[in-house]
Amino acid sequence: MSEAMSHDTLARLAAVLEARKGAAPDSSYVASLYHKGLNKILEKVGEESVETILAAKDAAVSGDCSDLIYETADLWFHSLVMLAALGQHPQAVLDELDRRFGLSGHAEKAARSQS
Amino acid sequence: MSEAMSHDTLARLAAVLEARKGAAPDSSYVASLYHKGLNKILEKVGEESVETILAAKDAAVSGDCSDLIYETADLWFHSLVMLAALGQHPQAVLDELDRRFGLSGHAEKAARSQS
Amino acid sequence: MSEAMSHDTLARLAAVLEARKGAAPDSSYVASLYHKGLNKILEKVGEESVETILAAKDAAVSGDCSDLIYETADLWFHSLVMLAALGQHPQAVLDELDRRFGLSGHAEKAARSQS
Amino acid sequence: MSEAMSHDTLARLAAVLEARKGAAPDSSYVASLYHKGLNKILEKVGEESVETILAAKDAAVSGDCSDLIYETADLWFHSLVMLAALGQHPQAVLDELDRRFGLSGHAEKAARSQS
Repeated sequence: MSEAMSHDTLARLAAVLEARKGAAPDSSYVASLYHKGLNKILEKVGEESVETILAAKDAAVSGDCSDLIYETADLWFHSLVMLAALGQHPQAVLDELDRRFGLSGHAEKAARSQS
Repeated sequence: MSEAMSHDTLARLAAVLEARKGAAPDSSYVASLYHKGLNKILEKVGEESVETILAAKDAAVSGDCSDLIYETADLWFHSLVMLAALGQHPQAVLDELDRRFGLSGHAEKAARSQS
Repeated sequence: MSEAMSHDTLARLAAVLEARKGAAPDSSYVASLYHKGLNKILEKVGEESVETILAAKDAAVSGDCSDLIYETADLWFHSLVMLAALGQHPQAVLDELDRRFGLSGHAEKAARSQS
Repeated sequence: MSEAMSHDTLARLAAVLEARKGAAPDSSYVASLYHKGLNKILEKVGEESVETILAAKDAAVSGDCSDLIYETADLWFHSLVMLAALGQHPQAVLDELDRRFGLSGHAEKAARSQS
């Protein structure tokens, strides 16, 4: 794993999304989404999940995963906008994943040795 | 941001998902998903995106975001299973987000100062 | 209900769904859905739409549309349950489609002659 | 097609969708969808299912079902376009619903008398 990953893309992105909350609707795509309201943001989450699913089906046939990565980025991005719009930070989601899967260093090591 | 976040929940989880690829179908939930195949995994991505959307609508009314965090964790988790099933690592998605939003330390600083 | 409508699958099905509203939760699948509430019904609409999309992708590759027909029936069925749960009749949806596409006999004839 | 079916909105709409198959991409919305291909049509099915779900949540709060009817019409319409694009007629879906729910006149009568 590169050092880069440990610098937390999701946390940085959450900071950007938070910073854009006060901005004029036409100042950025995110500002326009906030302005259009929660339903529009949730429509985007739904659209991007379907586009991700279609890209996964196509990738399984073609072997080319570039669209899949692009669409998954869109899906995660719009779910971050949704969290920001409702005052939530992605760390709460990561904490839930940690809690659920017990992802301490020891657990990961154990998981690896079981494989 | 806590030190914990910098230890990369997504990367740890990706390692666990990779480790379970060789496991017997009944040995874990993830192993059973791999065994059922891509359509079942994508159905779960779709289901969890709808449950996330419903939880967001309810959170907007009730002010309680605990279900939203739980369902978003489910959505991200199943999108990680999808990536693993197609041989992709979440770092590729994070790299795409970094590329798209230019999230270098400088860009983040600039974004903060614009707010 | 007009005589014409009583010959229609959707209208018949709506009558059945209406009739089951007073039933005990364990008396039928529909009664159990009503009992679980609107979110569960909407989750099913979302699930069935994803299963329909996956079946369409598979049909485009295999040429076999039997799953597609089955999943589309599931999607329409659960959207009828949704309408019933909110006190709406499918005729309102059909009226909207008629209004939107101007589907009088003359309009249809014109559409055919334009092709 | 029986005389009865020719009076039916879905059958009329299917005839219109069939008639537009040979048309120039810019001649109508449906012709442009056919031209863009199956993924674009399925994206619309996904989008409209999410918009239907959001409209149902809002209707449950407001008591106003007009958006719900409008979005459900959009969902059914785009599922008809999907069927047409794959060479299927909505009667096959209605036949599946009839088969599944045993919706003969007698069954309907029984359903009504049980309520």
